[in-house]
Amino acid sequence: MKQSQYKIKTLKEAPKDADNVSTALLSRAGFIDKLAAGIYTFLPLGYRVLRKIENIIREEMDALGGQEILMPALHPKENWEKTGRWGSLDVIFKVKSRASQDYALGSTHEEIVAPLAKGFINSYRDLPLYLYQIQTKFRDEPRAKSGLLRTREFSMKDLYSFHTDENDLDRFYEKAQKAYDKIYKRVGIGKETFKTYAGGGSFSKYSHEYQTLTSAGEDEIYFCEKCQVAINREIIDEEKKCPECSAVKDKLAVYKAIEVGNIFKLGTKFSHPFELSYLDKNGQKQEVVMGCYGIGPSRVLGAVVEVRHDERGIIWPEEIAPFKIHLILLSREAKVKKLADKLYDDLIKEGAEVLYDDTDDTAGVKFANSDLIGLPYRVVVSDKTVEKGGVGLKKRRDSAEKIVKVKEIIKLMAK
Amino acid sequence: MKQSQYKIKTLKEAPKDADNVSTALLSRAGFIDKLAAGIYTFLPLGYRVLRKIENIIREEMDALGGQEILMPALHPKENWEKTGRWGSLDVIFKVKSRASQDYALGSTHEEIVAPLAKGFINSYRDLPLYLYQIQTKFRDEPRAKSGLLRTREFSMKDLYSFHTDENDLDRFYEKAQKAYDKIYKRVGIGKETFKTYAGGGSFSKYSHEYQTLTSAGEDEIYFCEKCQVAINREIIDEEKKCPECSAVKDKLAVYKAIEVGNIFKLGTKFSHPFELSYLDKNGQKQEVVMGCYGIGPSRVLGAVVEVRHDERGIIWPEEIAPFKIHLILLSREAKVKKLADKLYDDLIKEGAEVLYDDTDDTAGVKFANSDLIGLPYRVVVSDKTVEKGGVGLKKRRDSAEKIVKVKEIIKLMAK
Repeated sequence: MKQSQYKIKTLKEAPKDADNVSTALLSRAGFIDKLAAGIYTFLPLGYRVLRKIENIIREEMDALGGQEILMPALHPKENWEKTGRWGSLDVIFKVKSRASQDYALGSTHEEIVAPLAKGFINSYRDLPLYLYQIQTKFRDEPRAKSGLLRTREFSMKDLYSFHTDENDLDRFYEKAQKAYDKIYKRVGIGKETFKTYAGGGSFSKYSHEYQTLTSAGEDEIYFCEKCQVAINREIIDEEKKCPECSAVKDKLAVYKAIEVGNIFKLGTKFSHPFELSYLDKNGQKQEVVMGCYGIGPSRVLGAVVEVRHDERGIIWPEEIAPFKIHLILLSREAKVKKLADKLYDDLIKEGAEVLYDDTDDTAGVKFANSDLIGLPYRVVVSDKTVEKGGVGLKKRRDSAEKIVKVKEIIKLMAK
Repeated sequence: MKQSQYKIKTLKEAPKDADNVSTALLSRAGFIDKLAAGIYTFLPLGYRVLRKIENIIREEMDALGGQEILMPALHPKENWEKTGRWGSLDVIFKVKSRASQDYALGSTHEEIVAPLAKGFINSYRDLPLYLYQIQTKFRDEPRAKSGLLRTREFSMKDLYSFHTDENDLDRFYEKAQKAYDKIYKRVGIGKETFKTYAGGGSFSKYSHEYQTLTSAGEDEIYFCEKCQVAINREIIDEEKKCPECSAVKDKLAVYKAIEVGNIFKLGTKFSHPFELSYLDKNGQKQEVVMGCYGIGPSRVLGAVVEVRHDERGIIWPEEIAPFKIHLILLSREAKVKKLADKLYDDLIKEGAEVLYDDTDDTAGVKFANSDLIGLPYRVVVSDKTVEKGGVGLKKRRDSAEKIVKVKEIIKLMAK
């Protein structure tokens, strides 16, 4: 993408209401634009990252055997009345229609997926079944804040699993955890993200959150070094020890963290009101046992920036960077420009993702913007690098630039 | 995808409220599921088609120089008050918030993209600019009907172009039409889809719709054979002739059609209230001139089925078929099953998209389902075909099956 054609507007100052690092950097670097409190537009760079995160999640859900569907955001009131949550879940937006009944704007989809699954499930042979979607959710958040971390409209992957019994749910619940570990590793926050014990509702003792440790987090979690798991405040206040090794609360470290996912054994909580059942091997009707597994790609995007940045800007992990290479031309010489143009074309031909700063900005502006945007590799073509026989290569997280021959850079950067 | 694992539930009868062919077939074949009037879930097969249509549109928008963004569905009331459409556009859903102001649920995004573009546009050097999104829209449709053709929630691609002047808009408007022609061709309704003169609003004499001729259409259009363009009822009632060759109304054929896209010269209608301006070469402030270009992937999906089906089911055009090949095993012999399994693995390795019916259903059920689902190629592996030295190959739209050697089928079907 040539910046002469696709203008990226960066800002010197963060918007005044940016109340954390990720919002400041993502706004300054031209990834997001705030429309209203808790409501953001994804600009071209930001949308590229969002789609990459969504695709990683999609791949891991497919590998689990998940089938991708797309459920609506408009939910009939009657579905939510059936579970009693029309009145009790106060973050659901309610929509009046001139033409029809009232709707809820989906903040979660158990009320939709349970009756939907009735069309798929008759006998034990139809189970297990795994349905997921990547879809826009809405929450009437009383305190929208922290940029992408707490919004009123956000991208969400929600997987729902359907089982004959609790044992089968338990088996899948373990597998889903491995998929979640892979996702956090691939998006670049694997080391900072931990499975966290959380309240379980009526069906199981615990549910689990995934929490990413960062000083910007609004959650406080207790961390057991020995088990490499975390415990949320609610559980620790009750149990006062690690649920795995029984280490007492005082032995646990306390960290700030951002919740970046949650998984939950639902049991028959939703299959019961919607009469979602199956015929077992003996022809007996049984209630289906369910699990649900959420992860918010837009919130993950914010969390990655909270963890991966320095004082100059964002440091994107390679697998979700909007582009791999920031190619920067620093010359008014036609010969040098020609060389940079050809390098751009050759890299594109090799399948590399390149952002090409071919604008007339000064070197200072180009370098500052490049650090702010934070692509993994910076490749500089200038009179000086050409004199030295090549281009200047620097990783975003390193400080030293080295001269590399043009041929070699193409080999290094090929997809 | 193996049907033993990914169960596709087909229905013998269409739902009673299916009021057109596409709704009946898409419901019976397991592509969509109705949640409420005008509100549908896309099931795995349907979602695959939807994503393919969206990707074709995305490719053509990128080729036009479009930059993809994602704007929110929740719109602040004040944006819509600024253009006077909060009160006048009666199909917008209104959402009450406990925590904030009221919102509109976006049925279109001029009120959002015009102020957004202010952040990108300062001088004439920043123009033209092309921003687009593929996003979920909402309409409080008084009469939701005809399945995916008239819904309350639907997928939409909306492109907005920004120009220094009318001439530049005119040039791009022509280019956009070529992109639209390509899209309809690629999704398989190029021959049936025509540019149609429609009302232009205050800025230009005409806007243009794209209309797909089909008996299921709820629009009636006048068609000029000579110019290969159509004219909508509103324009023909007024002008009583073809706008291109002036052929009189009586010389024009009348057809039923579905609107599958519309393009519109907006002029300064939205840049004016949002003060979207630029500095020209003389440093003078000028209002930006805008165009908008819509196409609904979910409605296009419905239109394709209206046009491409027979009495047995859907006939998917190859580029948007959920899978290319329906591989069907008709044997209980271990040897034959092994051959089919290997063929499936080999085809997948070659990058072909294969739906594999490895279930225990009867031949009759398998063939009926295969015709209903409508993939471009059917490949049958049975005792008989193996005896004859291969597999049975049939195109969905043909009736004769021919025997092809396994090696040859892999070569034929490789991506």
